[in-house]
Amino acid sequence: MVEQQMENLSVNDDDDVVDPWNVTGKSETGIDYDKLIKRFGSQKIDESLIQRFETVTGKRAHHFLRRGIFFSHRDFHNILSLYEKGEKFYLYTGRGPSSESMHIGHMIPFVFTKWLQDVFNVPLVIQLTDDEKVLWRDIKVEDARQMAFNNAKDIIAVGFDPKNTFIFNDLDFIGKCPEFYQNMIRIQKCVTFNQAKGIFGFGDSDVIGKVSFPAVEAAPSFSTSFPFIFGKKAVPCLVPCAIDQDPYFRMSRDVAARLKFPKPSLLHSTFLPALQGAQHKMSASDPNASIFLNDTVKQIKNKINKYAFSGGQATVEEHREKGGNTSVDISYKYLTFFLEDDDRLNEIKKQYESGELLTGELKKIAIETITPFVQAYQARRAAVTDDVLKQFFEIRPIEF
Amino acid sequence: MVEQQMENLSVNDDDDVVDPWNVTGKSETGIDYDKLIKRFGSQKIDESLIQRFETVTGKRAHHFLRRGIFFSHRDFHNILSLYEKGEKFYLYTGRGPSSESMHIGHMIPFVFTKWLQDVFNVPLVIQLTDDEKVLWRDIKVEDARQMAFNNAKDIIAVGFDPKNTFIFNDLDFIGKCPEFYQNMIRIQKCVTFNQAKGIFGFGDSDVIGKVSFPAVEAAPSFSTSFPFIFGKKAVPCLVPCAIDQDPYFRMSRDVAARLKFPKPSLLHSTFLPALQGAQHKMSASDPNASIFLNDTVKQIKNKINKYAFSGGQATVEEHREKGGNTSVDISYKYLTFFLEDDDRLNEIKKQYESGELLTGELKKIAIETITPFVQAYQARRAAVTDDVLKQFFEIRPIEF
Repeated sequence: MVEQQMENLSVNDDDDVVDPWNVTGKSETGIDYDKLIKRFGSQKIDESLIQRFETVTGKRAHHFLRRGIFFSHRDFHNILSLYEKGEKFYLYTGRGPSSESMHIGHMIPFVFTKWLQDVFNVPLVIQLTDDEKVLWRDIKVEDARQMAFNNAKDIIAVGFDPKNTFIFNDLDFIGKCPEFYQNMIRIQKCVTFNQAKGIFGFGDSDVIGKVSFPAVEAAPSFSTSFPFIFGKKAVPCLVPCAIDQDPYFRMSRDVAARLKFPKPSLLHSTFLPALQGAQHKMSASDPNASIFLNDTVKQIKNKINKYAFSGGQATVEEHREKGGNTSVDISYKYLTFFLEDDDRLNEIKKQYESGELLTGELKKIAIETITPFVQAYQARRAAVTDDVLKQFFEIRPIEF
Repeated sequence: MVEQQMENLSVNDDDDVVDPWNVTGKSETGIDYDKLIKRFGSQKIDESLIQRFETVTGKRAHHFLRRGIFFSHRDFHNILSLYEKGEKFYLYTGRGPSSESMHIGHMIPFVFTKWLQDVFNVPLVIQLTDDEKVLWRDIKVEDARQMAFNNAKDIIAVGFDPKNTFIFNDLDFIGKCPEFYQNMIRIQKCVTFNQAKGIFGFGDSDVIGKVSFPAVEAAPSFSTSFPFIFGKKAVPCLVPCAIDQDPYFRMSRDVAARLKFPKPSLLHSTFLPALQGAQHKMSASDPNASIFLNDTVKQIKNKINKYAFSGGQATVEEHREKGGNTSVDISYKYLTFFLEDDDRLNEIKKQYESGELLTGELKKIAIETITPFVQAYQARRAAVTDDVLKQFFEIRPIEF
């Protein structure tokens, strides 16, 4: 039987486009995330949830939570209840590898996942969907695998520890773990072409690999896909991801109910906007829209000064009089992601909106905030050797 | 681009139904195999091909070839040319496992494959599609795997040798061989849902696992799916199979051209008819229609005497006068499969058609021919232990 979650989510012409392959906002302030929550049927991360998080964990909530950068969830209360009772769960996130360097927007879910892992002290599995890239793009198997290995190094440099983190690419791992393939088949048995069409927008001229791929992204949300970590236990899963990946997990949750697996819980992030404005997310395919993790200090400075869309006024006089608009200013938006100090951020907001702070000065603060973040990252990245990579990819029991 | 072979094959209402899931003839003489050759676009195995086979191999053609039981092919000439030049190729066949005992009809492709292997001295891979059974039937992963292992023992008892035969079930092997999964993805990238619909008749309400399954049956026809046997070499493949499996290999051949793999060659068999008549193939789900490999001597005798459809006349007098009809007589048809002696078979035909031989006498000959075949099989089957099974399933280099 088709559950409600498997149904097509009707989209209107004036809705923002948010699916695993396209993200575009209709307004210059960016995507209307509250509207998205309604459309997707997820829950808003509100004050009471954040409070409960702080009570249960005894830790201050991450500024991504406090500032609505992780803004939506499904059943996060369940995870907090498990933690409260001292019961086990695990984290799962992932990435579709690409040949370009990763950019600072790619870091957001990983930085947050790392923080969750530190708070909860649980295992993490990270999937690199190189098979997806072969199916969707003009990319060969060998090249997709290489992209996955390179991207894995970039991810490891966020600060993960092989002690409790397993990283895998589909094109190798699925051929090394029969239980994973068996779960793929179980999932593929629960979803009709019609349903996949409704959830993902597939058409008759899509290749059959695309049609069945959602099972590959769903499988890691079931612990039995990793018997070397979890044995045969049905361990609940928490998936931190960008909101565009939600369709995979709406499907996973429906399938879970039918296979008598625990439904994965979810935490959804917003997107780091492109330099040119909040309608688009930062994209690796446009170098002028993105700050890459391998950009030099000079490149970062130039890109922000040259491209970061400003909410300031046309002249200094006008700016002093009317003030800047933080709801469209990209430098300010970046500070909400990368400047941890709440008081400082509030002060900047006040000063910019009052006209006291000029665009050039705001950009300077953004540059001074993002540059050390990237530099620290680059130092960690330099230490990720092939040997380190191997440790994360090894099929092995991990701390649990 | 869609090649001609990927196109839907138009079926008329009065055509026999022959696809991987259904086989039904419209006439009491059974399926019109000549018409099928035209519909499928394959080639008839004619006298000149049989002659060439005998010249190239120096061996007499098997009676399955001489009698049109293997009646159709694709590019078998290529295989004979390779053999002539001393170049390598391999054999691939398979079975969708079932919980019932295998019947004598299931043996036909395996008996013939064993003979081909002896003639050519080449490696053989045998696929058990337990994943297919999970997707198509109400069967759990664990049960499907068990069925595959049991069926494998039945197949081994045909007389295969682990020295040059590798047997695998999908639900375990795909999770042990990344190159196999990688080929699945390559194949799934070449076939659209529309094409799969045309070839296999899938509909929008079919589950996504069915839609992508054809890639699983196609993958073993490419040698790079078995790197532990063939390394990275593109070794041509010969697939002996029942004609109903042809759609998979029409697809494989089309995909091969696009992936620059050698196109698999094919040898197609007719079906051993059910006891009740030639319209239906022998089916494990109807015990009265089938002679099982674990039937007792008494059961074989009773089933043939009681159920084998007779081409004889209503009374002895009428039979003596008009003679029997070998084109519908099931006992006679079975003799064409199981009685190797051509002279003796011709003599029986003549005597039966002239009325000299009565139905009861013909049935007796059929019983006396099939019983020792089954008994010899049962003796070999008793020797297939778990240890023997293991040898065939081990991922290993094999003689090549």
